[in-house]
Amino acid sequence: MEVLKKRVFSLWPPFHRSGAAFFTTKAYSTVPSTQTLSVQQQNREAFRQAVVNTLERRLFYIPSFKIYGGVAGLYDYGPPGCAVKANVLALWRQHFVLEENMLEVDCPCVTPGIVLEASGHVDKFTDLMVKDEKTGACYRADHLLKDFCKDKLEKDHKLSAERAAELRHILAVLDDFSAEELCAKIKEYGITAPDTKNALSNPYPFNLMFQTSIGPSGSSPGYMRPETAQGIFVNFKDLYYYNGNKLPFAAAQIGQAFRNEISPRQGLLRVREFTLAEIEHFVDPEDKSFPKFSDVSDLELYMFPREDQMSGQPTRRITIGEAVSQGIIDNETLGYYIGRVYLFLTQLGIAKDRLRFRQHLENEMAHYSVDCWDAEIESSYGWIECVGIADRSAYDLNAHADRSGVPLVAYEKYQQPREVEKLVVVPVKKELGLAFKGNHRMVVEALEAMGDKEAMEMKASLEGKGECEFRVCALNKVVTIKNSMVSISIEKKKEQQRVFTPSVIEPSFGIGRIIYCLYEHSFYTRPSKGGDEQVNVFRFTPLVAPIKCTVFPLVQNRQYEDVAKQIAKSLTAFGISYKIDVTGTSIGKRYARTDELGVPFAVTVDTTSSVTVRERDSKQQIRVDVDEVASVVKQLTDGTSTWAGVLLRYPAHSP
Amino acid sequence: MEVLKKRVFSLWPPFHRSGAAFFTTKAYSTVPSTQTLSVQQQNREAFRQAVVNTLERRLFYIPSFKIYGGVAGLYDYGPPGCAVKANVLALWRQHFVLEENMLEVDCPCVTPGIVLEASGHVDKFTDLMVKDEKTGACYRADHLLKDFCKDKLEKDHKLSAERAAELRHILAVLDDFSAEELCAKIKEYGITAPDTKNALSNPYPFNLMFQTSIGPSGSSPGYMRPETAQGIFVNFKDLYYYNGNKLPFAAAQIGQAFRNEISPRQGLLRVREFTLAEIEHFVDPEDKSFPKFSDVSDLELYMFPREDQMSGQPTRRITIGEAVSQGIIDNETLGYYIGRVYLFLTQLGIAKDRLRFRQHLENEMAHYSVDCWDAEIESSYGWIECVGIADRSAYDLNAHADRSGVPLVAYEKYQQPREVEKLVVVPVKKELGLAFKGNHRMVVEALEAMGDKEAMEMKASLEGKGECEFRVCALNKVVTIKNSMVSISIEKKKEQQRVFTPSVIEPSFGIGRIIYCLYEHSFYTRPSKGGDEQVNVFRFTPLVAPIKCTVFPLVQNRQYEDVAKQIAKSLTAFGISYKIDVTGTSIGKRYARTDELGVPFAVTVDTTSSVTVRERDSKQQIRVDVDEVASVVKQLTDGTSTWAGVLLRYPAHSP
Repeated sequence: MEVLKKRVFSLWPPFHRSGAAFFTTKAYSTVPSTQTLSVQQQNREAFRQAVVNTLERRLFYIPSFKIYGGVAGLYDYGPPGCAVKANVLALWRQHFVLEENMLEVDCPCVTPGIVLEASGHVDKFTDLMVKDEKTGACYRADHLLKDFCKDKLEKDHKLSAERAAELRHILAVLDDFSAEELCAKIKEYGITAPDTKNALSNPYPFNLMFQTSIGPSGSSPGYMRPETAQGIFVNFKDLYYYNGNKLPFAAAQIGQAFRNEISPRQGLLRVREFTLAEIEHFVDPEDKSFPKFSDVSDLELYMFPREDQMSGQPTRRITIGEAVSQGIIDNETLGYYIGRVYLFLTQLGIAKDRLRFRQHLENEMAHYSVDCWDAEIESSYGWIECVGIADRSAYDLNAHADRSGVPLVAYEKYQQPREVEKLVVVPVKKELGLAFKGNHRMVVEALEAMGDKEAMEMKASLEGKGECEFRVCALNKVVTIKNSMVSISIEKKKEQQRVFTPSVIEPSFGIGRIIYCLYEHSFYTRPSKGGDEQVNVFRFTPLVAPIKCTVFPLVQNRQYEDVAKQIAKSLTAFGISYKIDVTGTSIGKRYARTDELGVPFAVTVDTTSSVTVRERDSKQQIRVDVDEVASVVKQLTDGTSTWAGVLLRYPAHSP
Repeated sequence: MEVLKKRVFSLWPPFHRSGAAFFTTKAYSTVPSTQTLSVQQQNREAFRQAVVNTLERRLFYIPSFKIYGGVAGLYDYGPPGCAVKANVLALWRQHFVLEENMLEVDCPCVTPGIVLEASGHVDKFTDLMVKDEKTGACYRADHLLKDFCKDKLEKDHKLSAERAAELRHILAVLDDFSAEELCAKIKEYGITAPDTKNALSNPYPFNLMFQTSIGPSGSSPGYMRPETAQGIFVNFKDLYYYNGNKLPFAAAQIGQAFRNEISPRQGLLRVREFTLAEIEHFVDPEDKSFPKFSDVSDLELYMFPREDQMSGQPTRRITIGEAVSQGIIDNETLGYYIGRVYLFLTQLGIAKDRLRFRQHLENEMAHYSVDCWDAEIESSYGWIECVGIADRSAYDLNAHADRSGVPLVAYEKYQQPREVEKLVVVPVKKELGLAFKGNHRMVVEALEAMGDKEAMEMKASLEGKGECEFRVCALNKVVTIKNSMVSISIEKKKEQQRVFTPSVIEPSFGIGRIIYCLYEHSFYTRPSKGGDEQVNVFRFTPLVAPIKCTVFPLVQNRQYEDVAKQIAKSLTAFGISYKIDVTGTSIGKRYARTDELGVPFAVTVDTTSSVTVRERDSKQQIRVDVDEVASVVKQLTDGTSTWAGVLLRYPAHSP
C-alpha cells in the first residue's frame, strides 16, 4: 500500500483559506490603502446588516435551537429559505444531472473510519488550534494572527511603513504557515487569548470531523462525512458497470456534510453542517476532450489565472475556448464544467460582473492535482469560493483501491490486439535458496514486487558488474543479488485491452454559500409609496423566488375572498406556491411585505370578474380575467412568457 | 420544571415493536397454523429474494461502503433508487406542503444534548441489549427471545399445545416486556449467544442515538437527530409569528435521521440512517375540526381500530367520515390526515388492499397521547408501519417550554373581554415573618407557587379548621399555616385573550420504508418473448418511474442514432429523464432491461420520419412522428394524457 499523500482539502468550503483573506491579499491585486479599506468595510458591513436583518426577520434563516441560546455555526432554513434552497437544487438537478445524464447517488452521512483513513481525512483534515491556558477556550491559531495583523493595520496610525508591509505580507502568506511558523509569530507579537488576555498554548492540529461510533460495541469508529465525494468514489466499480462499462460518465450527489469548526465566524458562510452538491466526472486521462465543448466555448467570463495573480494583474475577460486553446485551462472537460457552472450561477441571479473563476496557485494544489479553479462570488465578506472545479487525476480512486484491495479501473478494448513490451522478472529460486536459506522467500517476493524502473536498473547493474545491491524491506537489510539469481528480460506480448485508473474532474458546490451570495446580489431598498421609509426588496427570478405569487382581496369582503380562494385553488393545481393575505392591512403594506420575500407577482382581487397582476420590480400592473390569471402566472413563472410579453397582451392597470 | 415523562417513541420507525411481529401476533387476528405459516413464509422469502436481487443488480440500492465489506444498516441509493426517491419526495411536497400551504423548514442533523434531554430521548430512547459474556458481541434482547419462540414453533414438532400457546403469547406481548421480564424469560429458556452458545449478560438499556461532540472543547455533547420533529418544535414561536399568529398551521420537514441500531435486521426496512418526512400540525386543543374535512370524508379504506384488534376481528372497510362520527378516529384533523396519507400512498402505487390504518393499543400510547394510527403496508416481512399519525396533545411544546424557559403558546383574542374567575393567593407577610422568622421568604414563595387545586384545599381547610398542614419543599418540612397568614379568594377578572399551548398532530413518514414496500407492490415477472426465461418488471407509475423513457435505434446506423439524439434533446428540454441505448443488443433484450428498471415508455427509432412508442405493461405500441414524440411522452408522463387516450389518437404498431 502506498503511503497516504495529503489530500488538498480545498474543494469546498476552503479550510486552509477564507474568502475574506483574498480581499486583503497582495497577490490578488486589490490592496486598497488602509483608509479606504476601512470606509469600504463599513459600507459593506452596513449593507450586510440590512440583508441579514431582513433574512432573519422573514425567517429565511433561523439560528438553530434559538430557544436554548443557539449553537455557533448551525442555522435552520425557515419557510422562504427552505423554498429557495429547494428551487436552487431543482435547477441544479435539471442543469447538471438531467442535461448530462449523470448517475445520481445518495449515500449515508455516517461513514466508517476506514473510508476516511483511505481518503486522508483522518490524518490531514485539521486546523491548527490554540487554547487559553487558564480557561481552556479554543481558538483557530491563524484567526488570531490574522485579527492581530488587521487590527494593527487599521487602528495603529503610528505604524511604520516597514512594519505595515510586514503585516500585509503575513496576511498574504498566512494560509501556508506551518504550526511552527504560526507559533513563532504568535510568540513574537505576544498574542494572547482575546477574551481573557491569558497566555495561549502552542498551536496543534484539531481534526474537523464530527466523530461517533457505529453499533453498540464501541469498537467501530465512524465520522459524519466532511464531503459527499467519497461515497461516489467507493461506488466507482458499480457505477462504471451501470454505465455499460463506458467512459466518460459523471456521478452526482446532493447531501449534508459536516465540519466541526473550531470557532465558526462569517455567519452564514462558515457553518458546521451544510448541503453540498458534488459531481465526479470520470474520464480517460489520455483523452479529456468533451463532445459538447463547443456549447460553452464562446462564453466570455472573468478569469483570474495563476500567472495574473502572481504578477499582480487584474482579472481578465476571456472566452472559455481561448482559455483552453491557450493552455490557461488544462483541458476541455474542465473548461466545459467552468462554462456550465457560470451558466448555472448567472441563471440563478448571481451578477455576472461579481463572479470570477480563480485558478489555484501551485502551492494551493496537491502534487497530483492537474488544475483547479474556484468560482468566486463577490459579497460583503470579499470574494467567496462557492464552487471548486478540480482535475484531481487518479488520486482518489487509487487511494481507495490501495486500501480496499478492490481494483477501481476502467478498460479500453483494442479493435486489434496490440503488441506491447513487458519487463519480466523471474527469480531463480534454487540459487536464492542456497544464498539466503530461510530468508529466501522474502527475497523472492521483493524481486517480484520490483517496479519497472528498479528492475531496469538492476538489469543494467547485473549486466555491467555481475551483481547488484538490493534492499529487502521485509528483512530490513540490503543483500547482494548475483547474475545467476534472477533473470530480467523484455518480452513482447499481445494485449487485448488497456487497463487504467480514470481521472476525476470534480465540480463541488457549496449550496448554502451560493444561496447567501444570491441574497446579497438580489437585495435592494427603495422608498415606500409615501416616501417616508425604505422598503426592502429581493429581486429573485421567478425560478428562485420562494413564493411565486401572492393573492390579496383589495378590501375585506366575502365575495373578494371567495374569488381569492378560487384563484388560490387554480394556482395549487398548477403547482405554483402562493400566499394568500386576507388581512385588512393597506394594499401598499401588503405589497411591501411581499417585496421583502421577493415574491415576483401579486394578484389583487378588486372586482369579481377581473383582477390585477403586479410585477415586483417595475411595480407595473395589468388587468386579467379571473379565469385566466392562474395560467398567466404559470406562464410568467415557468418562463414561457415574459413580463414584457404579457404587457402587450393585457391592458395596463394604473392604480 | 416538570419531571420528564416518557415519550412514546412509536412514531417511526417503531423501536419497541417490529412489523414482522404483528404478522404472528394473536391480537392482530392473523394467526395461521404453524404449517401454513412456514409455507407462506417460504413463498414470501422467495418473492423477496427476487425483488431484492433485481434491486441490487440494477443499483436501486447498494450496500454502503461495499468495497470495504459494508456496514450493517447502511445503504446507498444508486441512480434509479435516487430518482425514485426524488420523485416520491416531489409528490410529497406537492401533496402536503403545497396543497396545505405548510411552512417547510430545514434544520441541522447535529443537535445539542439539551434539546434531546428535554424531548426525553437522552433518557428513554433505548433498546434492551445483552452481551455475549466472552466475546462481547451485542444482541437485542427481544430479538433473541423472539427468535427462540419462532424457532420452537416452527421446528419443534413435539411441542405440546400448552407450550405452543405460551410461546405464541410471548410473541404477542414481547414488545411490552421490561428488562426484568426479558431477563427472566432468557434465563428460563436457557437462551445463549446465537453464534457462540456462550452465556449472556443481563439485558440493559442501550441508547440508540449516535453521539458526538460539538466544537473543539469536548464539553458540548451532541447527537445526530433521531427524528426531524424536534427542529420544528423548538421553532414554534417563530413559525407561529410567521403565520400571522394564527392557528391552525402545519410545519413540515424532510431530512435525514439516525438510529444506532444494536443489530440491524430486515434488510432495507431497519437501517441506521434514513430519510424522514414529518408534519407537525398545530391546532387549538378545543377545536380540532378541519375546514377541508369533507374532501376526504367519503374515502373508504381498511381500518383496524383498537377494539377490533383486542377482540380478534379482521380489519374493516369504513369511510373516514363514519370513523370520525362514530368516535373511532378522535377528531377531524386526525381523520383528514389519515385520508391524505391514504391518497398519497395509493397515488404512488401502493395497493389499496394491502394498506391498512391500525390504531395504537392503549399500552402502545403515552399517557398524553390522544389517539394514534399507523399506516401499515403489507410486504413479505408482514405488515410494516410506514407512516405514523399521532395526536400528541401539548406534550412536546410543554417539554421544550419547561426546559428552555421560553413560553411556546398561542393566543386567542376575544371579540369582547371575558369575565373569568381567578383564584388569588395573598400571603400575609407580617404574620408569616413573625411565625417563621428567617425562613418566612421560602414559605411565602411556596404559598404563591401553589396550584389551583392545592389552594382550594387549603382554603377549605382554613375555613373549616382555621389552619392547614403545608409542605414547603425548599425547607423540606411541613409547616402549619393559620387563617391569619394567607388570604385565598376567588376574584372575577376581565380577560382580553386566552393563552394556551397548542396540540400537535404529527404525520411522520418513513420514506425508505414506503419506497421499499412500493418496490414489492410494483414487482412482477412474465415470460420473455421466446418464453425461455422470466423477465422482471416494475410497474411504476410514470410519476414514480426513475427514468420516464428509453430511446433505442432499432439497428446500429448513423441516421437512426442521429434521430435518437434529436429526440433525446427534445426530452431534456421538456425535463424528462431518459436513457439512450445504442448498443446492438436485440430489441427484445433492450426492452427487458428497460422493464426491469420500470421505465414506462420506450421509443424505438425504426425509420427517420416516425418512431414507435411502447407501453411497458401492455407491450402495446403506437407509431408517432419524430417531431411529435417528445411531446407525446411528456403528456403521458405528466398525466395530461393516458395510454388509452393516445391509443385513440395514433395508429397502433404491430411489431
